[in-house]
Amino acid sequence: MKVAFLIYDEFTLLDLAGPIEVFRHWPGAESHYVALSHAPVRSDSRVTITPTATTESLLDPDVIVVPGTDRPDVFGADDPLAHWLRETAPFARWVTSVCTGAFLLAHAGLLQGKRATTHWAYRAELARLGVEVVSDRVVCDGDVATAAGVSAGIDMALTLLGREAGDTVAQMTQLGIEYDPQPPYDCGSPEKAGDVLTRATRSFISAL
Amino acid sequence: MKVAFLIYDEFTLLDLAGPIEVFRHWPGAESHYVALSHAPVRSDSRVTITPTATTESLLDPDVIVVPGTDRPDVFGADDPLAHWLRETAPFARWVTSVCTGAFLLAHAGLLQGKRATTHWAYRAELARLGVEVVSDRVVCDGDVATAAGVSAGIDMALTLLGREAGDTVAQMTQLGIEYDPQPPYDCGSPEKAGDVLTRATRSFISAL
Repeated sequence: MKVAFLIYDEFTLLDLAGPIEVFRHWPGAESHYVALSHAPVRSDSRVTITPTATTESLLDPDVIVVPGTDRPDVFGADDPLAHWLRETAPFARWVTSVCTGAFLLAHAGLLQGKRATTHWAYRAELARLGVEVVSDRVVCDGDVATAAGVSAGIDMALTLLGREAGDTVAQMTQLGIEYDPQPPYDCGSPEKAGDVLTRATRSFISAL
Repeated sequence: MKVAFLIYDEFTLLDLAGPIEVFRHWPGAESHYVALSHAPVRSDSRVTITPTATTESLLDPDVIVVPGTDRPDVFGADDPLAHWLRETAPFARWVTSVCTGAFLLAHAGLLQGKRATTHWAYRAELARLGVEVVSDRVVCDGDVATAAGVSAGIDMALTLLGREAGDTVAQMTQLGIEYDPQPPYDCGSPEKAGDVLTRATRSFISAL
């Protein structure tokens, strides 16, 4: 079973690293890091990764994971990554996104008539692409699973692993990665953070 | 301010990706990915990363982050990474580890007389190196901060960011990465998982 992790310049590393770590515990799964070419790809944290496959060589993924970026406005329906998604998704068991990776799914036409989530700061923009955006952390609709911002990829991947490989495998994986979160603050969503901190955070993250 | 993320063959990607994502929000911080040479380094999930600095070129990090690996028994006091840690740590503001990265700190002599934590499955082994091992998720003792297994690096990094850059920056970072965890199961620590699942998980992760 092939899990294709899509990588492209300026993607967000943690969006992908959560699902990578979880799915590597999936019995029988092989991880592939797929880019438009074999050229190294640089994340928005300046981590440079060498692809293991290209969108030309890997056309039969069983699971697709699309990470986000700070600049989802660069995507469009003509994006070659959207094109690859349009070609491969119909044959995949699961198509998933983390954070603003949902914009690529939307441009590929994969969120038509579907409920989906994305990073809280980009929900309104995603809705403008005709997606029924909800504020849940993990949303599964048919064969499409979307996760909220960045760290939500861990929750999405564990949820999917539970459905596909059973609760016991997912529980052993959760314990294996010691996922017993103790965030130092209770402000991980706009609802918990309140208006003032949320507005400040919008400026803070766009200044990055 | 230089943050040095140490990378070496078979390191665990998520150990590092959490702190990378958090510290990239630290005003004035520059991230460096440091290895023994410029040769690409492969994680235990087969992600190949190109170092941006080497242990010869970067000798003045302000913050050091050491990820773990499934095989911490390969480390020893003569390890060149332990040697680099021994040389640079005295001048760093913070020396940190995630998961079994604590073994490298221990071999470098940096945990002598200090309280520290590591992945739950390796606590007894770490104690055999003369470390006072505790089961907390994040432990700060002097200028050394250690985190429990894998995902605990996110909590450690946010804790440190709060101390160094203030609560508001850390809170904006937590909201920025939408760290409002909703793990699908309540089994992320051996205490919560119970004996049967914990024993099964030990075999499961050693078989990886």
